[in-house]
Amino acid sequence: MTKFPLAVIGLLAFSAPVLAQRVPPPQVPVDPHVVALRDAALKDDVAYDIVEGLTTEVGPRLAGTEAEARARAWAVAKLTALGFKNVRIEPARMQTWVRGDEAAEVMSPFPQKLRVAALGNSGATPASGITAPIVYFASFNDLVAAPDGSLKGKIAFVSNAMAATQDGSTYGTFGAARFVGPAIASRKGALAILIKSIGSDHSRAPHTGVTSFPAGAQAIPAAALSVADAENLERMVKRGQPINLHLTLTPHQVGETDTGNVIAEVPGTDPAAGIVVIGGHLDSWDLGTGAIDDGAGVAITTAAAKRLLDGPAPRRTIRVVWFGDEETGGAGSKAYFAAHKGDHHVLAAESDFGADHVWRLATNFAPDNAAIADRLAAALAPLGIVRSRDKGGDGADIAPLVGAGVAAVDLNQDGTRYFDYHHTPEDVLDRIDPAQLAQNVAAWTTMLAVVANASEDIAPVAAADGKAR
Amino acid sequence: MTKFPLAVIGLLAFSAPVLAQRVPPPQVPVDPHVVALRDAALKDDVAYDIVEGLTTEVGPRLAGTEAEARARAWAVAKLTALGFKNVRIEPARMQTWVRGDEAAEVMSPFPQKLRVAALGNSGATPASGITAPIVYFASFNDLVAAPDGSLKGKIAFVSNAMAATQDGSTYGTFGAARFVGPAIASRKGALAILIKSIGSDHSRAPHTGVTSFPAGAQAIPAAALSVADAENLERMVKRGQPINLHLTLTPHQVGETDTGNVIAEVPGTDPAAGIVVIGGHLDSWDLGTGAIDDGAGVAITTAAAKRLLDGPAPRRTIRVVWFGDEETGGAGSKAYFAAHKGDHHVLAAESDFGADHVWRLATNFAPDNAAIADRLAAALAPLGIVRSRDKGGDGADIAPLVGAGVAAVDLNQDGTRYFDYHHTPEDVLDRIDPAQLAQNVAAWTTMLAVVANASEDIAPVAAADGKAR
Repeated sequence: MTKFPLAVIGLLAFSAPVLAQRVPPPQVPVDPHVVALRDAALKDDVAYDIVEGLTTEVGPRLAGTEAEARARAWAVAKLTALGFKNVRIEPARMQTWVRGDEAAEVMSPFPQKLRVAALGNSGATPASGITAPIVYFASFNDLVAAPDGSLKGKIAFVSNAMAATQDGSTYGTFGAARFVGPAIASRKGALAILIKSIGSDHSRAPHTGVTSFPAGAQAIPAAALSVADAENLERMVKRGQPINLHLTLTPHQVGETDTGNVIAEVPGTDPAAGIVVIGGHLDSWDLGTGAIDDGAGVAITTAAAKRLLDGPAPRRTIRVVWFGDEETGGAGSKAYFAAHKGDHHVLAAESDFGADHVWRLATNFAPDNAAIADRLAAALAPLGIVRSRDKGGDGADIAPLVGAGVAAVDLNQDGTRYFDYHHTPEDVLDRIDPAQLAQNVAAWTTMLAVVANASEDIAPVAAADGKAR
Repeated sequence: MTKFPLAVIGLLAFSAPVLAQRVPPPQVPVDPHVVALRDAALKDDVAYDIVEGLTTEVGPRLAGTEAEARARAWAVAKLTALGFKNVRIEPARMQTWVRGDEAAEVMSPFPQKLRVAALGNSGATPASGITAPIVYFASFNDLVAAPDGSLKGKIAFVSNAMAATQDGSTYGTFGAARFVGPAIASRKGALAILIKSIGSDHSRAPHTGVTSFPAGAQAIPAAALSVADAENLERMVKRGQPINLHLTLTPHQVGETDTGNVIAEVPGTDPAAGIVVIGGHLDSWDLGTGAIDDGAGVAITTAAAKRLLDGPAPRRTIRVVWFGDEETGGAGSKAYFAAHKGDHHVLAAESDFGADHVWRLATNFAPDNAAIADRLAAALAPLGIVRSRDKGGDGADIAPLVGAGVAAVDLNQDGTRYFDYHHTPEDVLDRIDPAQLAQNVAAWTTMLAVVANASEDIAPVAAADGKAR
């Protein structure tokens, strides 16, 4: 491949200064203060200390449970010890679901136990389980095409072909089987549903994650098979005989309980310049210790803010939010938005895609703020970070802010390994590479140093430019 | 991360058929004929046979040289033996550059030989070489900022921080040092330029590739250091003493010579439905045997077309082009466009990004043809392929057609390993994984089966939608 950019060739007809404005990344000066902060952050150990502490001293912290409450207390102590200002918990309420027993076993024709994990909001079988024939669907597409009523008395088994991607884009597509597959199977009369895990590994570790049953759809038992077990079950299907399966899932809804956000700040020198809000989520699924999802996110954003806390005060206040309940319904981000939608937020950014290196920058600045994006791109390029052609503004926790027109920056992490471990028992500290974690901190520190000190106003983004989803 | 798509949650309020039209990938029926062709192609061995033959029996085939002429003859024999129709060579002329001797050595303070490869269009040193001090630039950004005249009598040494990406997006950004760095250094008075290879490896193999000196800029000697050698030289720079380097590069321009495109067809049943043009490029750089760049591309597209050749005749003619001279200036694609711009092309697609699996589909169909894109996405999803938010139309060889408004489909290969080997001696057959090569053939066969048989007209794309670059 040459892909010699024709635009670049054309530029050679102009003088170097013209070229300097148009070759990506934009050739603009980088503030030496930013360079110094960036390069020092490559030796950061604060982020590792946070995620090591959270996974060791708290561990799994399912939203709405007492484990999440312990995590909030841990967070307050840590943020206070780090010297942040205005450290507090903002409580909220949520509907909470908890896992019970879970087991699956092929009864005939090839008796074998299979590894499963219930999906969040799954209904329950009787304690003694159910036995029923399975109906196989090679894809979500095929499940959708099944006639109404055709699954009566059956267990739907839905496969998928999710591959690893650096940008994580296969999750949205192939994840449909988990997001809405159970509700669709329920409406078609299924007794229960098993999906091949929404993951890019081939291990025995099943991937949990939330599903949703809207009003009118019965919450049937819904679980993910590990990819390896799903592949084994598919091989059985191909042999052509009816397959009977025994399934036991005993989760339950416990009603309304406490959740909350933990907030800390680096005060800015110019209150009129607005607030830069960053963070990740404190809750985790219950199977692992929530290292990559999302201990890393709160660790990275906090460690970066700490570097600005320890230097000259930034122009803008940096607010770090460790959101509660991201995983099971987003009660944390909803509560934050309800309480703070009147605050003068000028920029939002979220880290919730693991701890592998940042490879790409995406922004959604208003046209008048294009120079800020250019400065970011130039300052981040030495970390190996490239500029995206897409607009920024991804992330469940900042979605309400982005939807309301707050400008956003995404520092996209490499997702190649992420869905090997996401929502599984394997999401533990051992998945985190300290050198890549530090590169994240360097990228976030660079971003904060540029945006929190930008001399221009940071404008709201027109609704059409925001990317709420 | 949850990234639970809000749009999907909302859809649950609707009935399943509505949902079926809106959840990605679009839940549309897939033609059983397409499924059968796709699944059979996963066992393809024609593509491997082509790239094995081309790399073994021809090997390196620099554009404009007699090696490229041998490759054209080989291609005609192979395409004829495979049963294609209208197999022919369409000759063209081009300006040809050939490599000479090349050597680099630090003379002081730490004498060591360094591995280099001249860039295409590099000027030459005297046969005895030159000795000069180096001036270090940590990035292309820094080279651009150097004052005019400041490089007089010096060898510029430009580094970069290119990281591997699945989508290859770092190539455009970090490649600027190769694309235009030599011309900029020349204008600033440099005697010669060395760049850190535009590659994501850390090996001793330097990456060549074309550079360009516009009228008025002297073609100075320009070469790439291997990444490992560049990193060694950077460590020397950090020690703070002046570095003297001896450089010998003796390439030369040989003037106008022959190149050409090799063309083969699968005749369609409906001439009024237009032509689907696909292909890759036959020429390669001279250092490796051109397995991933781009023996794989001609092999994949030809093997896919062969599967349609061997079945019921498609509605549309499929024209396979093995383009000459992609690497050094694009004489092949220019000649094709000059000769065929009056043909009724309705779709163009190119494979020129290695042989690792296809992970993403991008299209640029006119709005009225959105249903074709939906059918493609549904048919490709079981191969693990996700739909891009970007528009399709990448690729140097189809750029003139796309620029003229021909619709385009990109089947993006995984580029994670591509720039480890691209334009190096390591671009050989051993880099090709036969299973991933066959997945490419399955994706291309699927694409051809859908677009060549689409019952609707395939419309031209408005200029604003085309992505010529």
